Amino acid sequence: MSADMDSIKTKAQEMATKQREISVAEFFAKNRHLLGFDNKRKALMTTVKEAVDNSLDACEEAGILPEVSIDIIDMKEDRYRIIVEDNGPGIVKQQIPKIFAKLLYGSKFHRLKMSRGQQGIGISASVMYAQMTTGRPAKIVSKIHPNEPAHYYELHIDTEKNRPDIVKEDTVEWAKEHGTKIELDLEGTYQVGNQSVDEYLKETAITNPHITIIYTNPKAQQLIFPRATETLPDEPKEIAPHPYGVELGMLFKMMQQTQYRTLQAFLTNEFSRVGAGTAKQICENAALLPNAAPSKLSRVQAEQLLKGINATKIMAPPTDCISPIGADPLEKGLRKEINAEFYATTTRSPAVYRGNPFIIEVGIAYGGDQPGDTPVRLMRFANRVPLLYQQGACVMNKATVGTAWRSYGLSQSQGALPVGPMTIIIHIASVWVPFTSESKEAIAHYPEIYKEMRLALQEVGRKLSSYVNRKRRVRDELNKRSFIEKYIPHVAEALKELVGAKGFDGRAVEESLKKILEKKRGTVEPLEFDKEANVDFDEEFARIGKEGDEEGEGGDDDE
Amino acid sequence: MSADMDSIKTKAQEMATKQREISVAEFFAKNRHLLGFDNKRKALMTTVKEAVDNSLDACEEAGILPEVSIDIIDMKEDRYRIIVEDNGPGIVKQQIPKIFAKLLYGSKFHRLKMSRGQQGIGISASVMYAQMTTGRPAKIVSKIHPNEPAHYYELHIDTEKNRPDIVKEDTVEWAKEHGTKIELDLEGTYQVGNQSVDEYLKETAITNPHITIIYTNPKAQQLIFPRATETLPDEPKEIAPHPYGVELGMLFKMMQQTQYRTLQAFLTNEFSRVGAGTAKQICENAALLPNAAPSKLSRVQAEQLLKGINATKIMAPPTDCISPIGADPLEKGLRKEINAEFYATTTRSPAVYRGNPFIIEVGIAYGGDQPGDTPVRLMRFANRVPLLYQQGACVMNKATVGTAWRSYGLSQSQGALPVGPMTIIIHIASVWVPFTSESKEAIAHYPEIYKEMRLALQEVGRKLSSYVNRKRRVRDELNKRSFIEKYIPHVAEALKELVGAKGFDGRAVEESLKKILEKKRGTVEPLEFDKEANVDFDEEFARIGKEGDEEGEGGDDDE
Repeated sequence: MSADMDSIKTKAQEMATKQREISVAEFFAKNRHLLGFDNKRKALMTTVKEAVDNSLDACEEAGILPEVSIDIIDMKEDRYRIIVEDNGPGIVKQQIPKIFAKLLYGSKFHRLKMSRGQQGIGISASVMYAQMTTGRPAKIVSKIHPNEPAHYYELHIDTEKNRPDIVKEDTVEWAKEHGTKIELDLEGTYQVGNQSVDEYLKETAITNPHITIIYTNPKAQQLIFPRATETLPDEPKEIAPHPYGVELGMLFKMMQQTQYRTLQAFLTNEFSRVGAGTAKQICENAALLPNAAPSKLSRVQAEQLLKGINATKIMAPPTDCISPIGADPLEKGLRKEINAEFYATTTRSPAVYRGNPFIIEVGIAYGGDQPGDTPVRLMRFANRVPLLYQQGACVMNKATVGTAWRSYGLSQSQGALPVGPMTIIIHIASVWVPFTSESKEAIAHYPEIYKEMRLALQEVGRKLSSYVNRKRRVRDELNKRSFIEKYIPHVAEALKELVGAKGFDGRAVEESLKKILEKKRGTVEPLEFDKEANVDFDEEFARIGKEGDEEGEGGDDDE
Repeated sequence: MSADMDSIKTKAQEMATKQREISVAEFFAKNRHLLGFDNKRKALMTTVKEAVDNSLDACEEAGILPEVSIDIIDMKEDRYRIIVEDNGPGIVKQQIPKIFAKLLYGSKFHRLKMSRGQQGIGISASVMYAQMTTGRPAKIVSKIHPNEPAHYYELHIDTEKNRPDIVKEDTVEWAKEHGTKIELDLEGTYQVGNQSVDEYLKETAITNPHITIIYTNPKAQQLIFPRATETLPDEPKEIAPHPYGVELGMLFKMMQQTQYRTLQAFLTNEFSRVGAGTAKQICENAALLPNAAPSKLSRVQAEQLLKGINATKIMAPPTDCISPIGADPLEKGLRKEINAEFYATTTRSPAVYRGNPFIIEVGIAYGGDQPGDTPVRLMRFANRVPLLYQQGACVMNKATVGTAWRSYGLSQSQGALPVGPMTIIIHIASVWVPFTSESKEAIAHYPEIYKEMRLALQEVGRKLSSYVNRKRRVRDELNKRSFIEKYIPHVAEALKELVGAKGFDGRAVEESLKKILEKKRGTVEPLEFDKEANVDFDEEFARIGKEGDEEGEGGDDDE
């Protein structure tokens, strides 16, 4: 053996020498498609998106009505200069290099609060891509107050260390009172239509009526999307994690690191929706003392505590950490964008996945000048940001395909989007949106999310069917009516014979028969039909609601 | 203004205090669905997959025929203990903690060589998931030589620091001569069928005929997949990057870091397929001197050099860095797995995306006891590893849907998989597989990859159509034949009159007419039909080959 054995040992030792740490920047440079840079066209869109999303987040957090200008300049040979400038609060000097030239650095990851950015990757990824494709540094200007200087940086990323490499540092004159401006040269392709920068900005305007966008495209045409409202969306609050979302490992770590001395204090202070009463209840269900010291408890006791939590009824997480668009603004947006006959929108009440609250909103625009023979158009949004790529991998697509549109009057073949003159908008607002990749193009298939989307789609679907069915109902009703009326004279005749001829007024009988008919079937006015219609819906509701629940469960399988 | 301005400044300063670095472990803990842990069932499969893939890589790199045993023990309440043990070379003591309890650490990321693992994430992600869901540490035993001790570790991951947290460290008795064993307790769900551990192992056996798997499932049933061959696949070689794949940023960095003094030496030594001649050619096309010092060149000159590279004809990258399964073994695997009437496989010659060589292999099994009224079954493999999730997001699915199967005798509706009694296997072998997420479930849509897959599918498709069409051909031919034969006597009669009656042998004429017929239309033997068939295919080839190319270009759009 040993000759062989020795060579294997040598091999093991040789392999050990090759083991190395991988910088997160190296990792994403090699896997840049994970960040949305898998082709030139997408690279252009992704870069604009990351810059604009950051601008909007910063403005809203500082309570400023956002005004963002985007310039894309064609430098020929598939190179473009992208300049994004905002009127945000600006960035303090010492933070500028890290925010733009270090991956996994930011203020949004470690909190539970609704925002567009969350990973601390996006804009630095664009800086890295620009550097990879043109070798040019990112140029940043930022200013936080009229009396402060504007700070200017030229930045590269040192990918092996994942840290900023400052090429130039200076202060400059800048007319703006406060704000940030970034300039990037990168390889890209400019195209209009689906999945283009133009489309991204247009859809952004729909779900963000409070922002003004001034966009100059590579053809030097200027498009302006003026704000439709002067009021900012409610600033979402930051929340503590909800007990239902915590896992054993996390819980145990929190128990060991907490500053609180008693289990009760720990539970009430480090989780949302846990008051003194609930805390006591949890401890009781966990067979632990409320005044036990969390840090002293064993892993086994942590497991008890977790069981206790799951055995206790706890209020759903607060919703002021999420600011949905709202059914009415959503419908306004739809009306602005799509010329249709019928609109319906809904905002679900908040739900929870892995302890993260989220709200699903859905809108539809039916008919008008939309093509009737193609699959419906699906517009996807996450925290007000349009999602333009990987629809096939997105739970929004799955939920739409998984809804029984036939019962709402659309044609639909197995496993496909419904066909009809319709646009569907789906929006998920959450303190933590579970994307299927760092490029944030599609939402992962969490069963709770799938189910909420199904239910929201069914709500608007039922409204749709009322519209689609009404005309048919009116026609049918008129037919029935005239049919019955035919027989009234004969019935009257028959009655006359029954009751005997004396003193029988045929006309009077016919009249009263007509009255009975009207009582039973109502008169032909829309209002009445609505009533009738609504009855049907309630039945339909019951039926579909049930089915929805059943199918909702299926949500966690992947294909 | 300033009151307002001051508050904004304050806000900017306050926001700055919230900026923080994010550990890659924290990042993936919060985004665990990116790693394939979005539901309990998938978590079980992913963990087994990561462990087995590592074992196979290690064995093959050390030239050992792999024998891997997998035990899954049901611990009740959705908890499972997974034990994976291999006969690999083992891991040297000081590397054990980092390999199993540090994300982005490994030997495979920084080289261009075909292997199952490549990111340095997989197994440590499983360790982290186990810790999150059960709080239990990973238990590792590893041994590199009969005379060496077996090292035992219990490991947690310190997620805030992304580094190993060693719970226990020891040496133990282990009967094995060399190998590694990992034991993990985690939350999961065990189910058979699609996307199950069982399916993953079964498919692994198909594409890895050289391995033996001993699998004990949670029902304590033992399944053994014995190896079908005693020979290891050729050990793939490590290669230098190909010039066509390098981007400006990378090239400039390489030029500044190189140890070589002249451009020519730099090009010939740091890239594959660049000999002295090619190097000179590149320099000429770049208008740079071959003896210029790379480190002295400016970014502008680096751009010249890149243009020079792309203007020079360079041989495709070497292929000994990739070991495909091979058309024959692939067909054997298919025959073993699927009972069909007709099999066809193909191995394309290597191609390049972003400088990374890759080979596409495709196989089909048609007919037999496969259901004829459902979409074909698509089995996807990357570097011999089965891909069980996210088929919808995978370029393999896109290429199959995008192939015109009607022309090969299958029914197919727009934008859907073809319908018929068939299984399709697609395998991509590459030094760097571009997955759509860290969970390595689907391949990204690189146009070059899409195109190669399309061409491979068309190859087997044409073989398929020959089979599907043959029976029809035979029947048609027989009809034509008998039809013509009917007229022979009459033609003979006519000839008799033309040439005049004297000495005319009608039978002889009929005979020769028959001969002519046979000459023209061949006799009814398969061989002849193949010939005839092939003629059609060549035409078909031309037609479809062309169409394939055209459509191939479309590959870079995302939906």
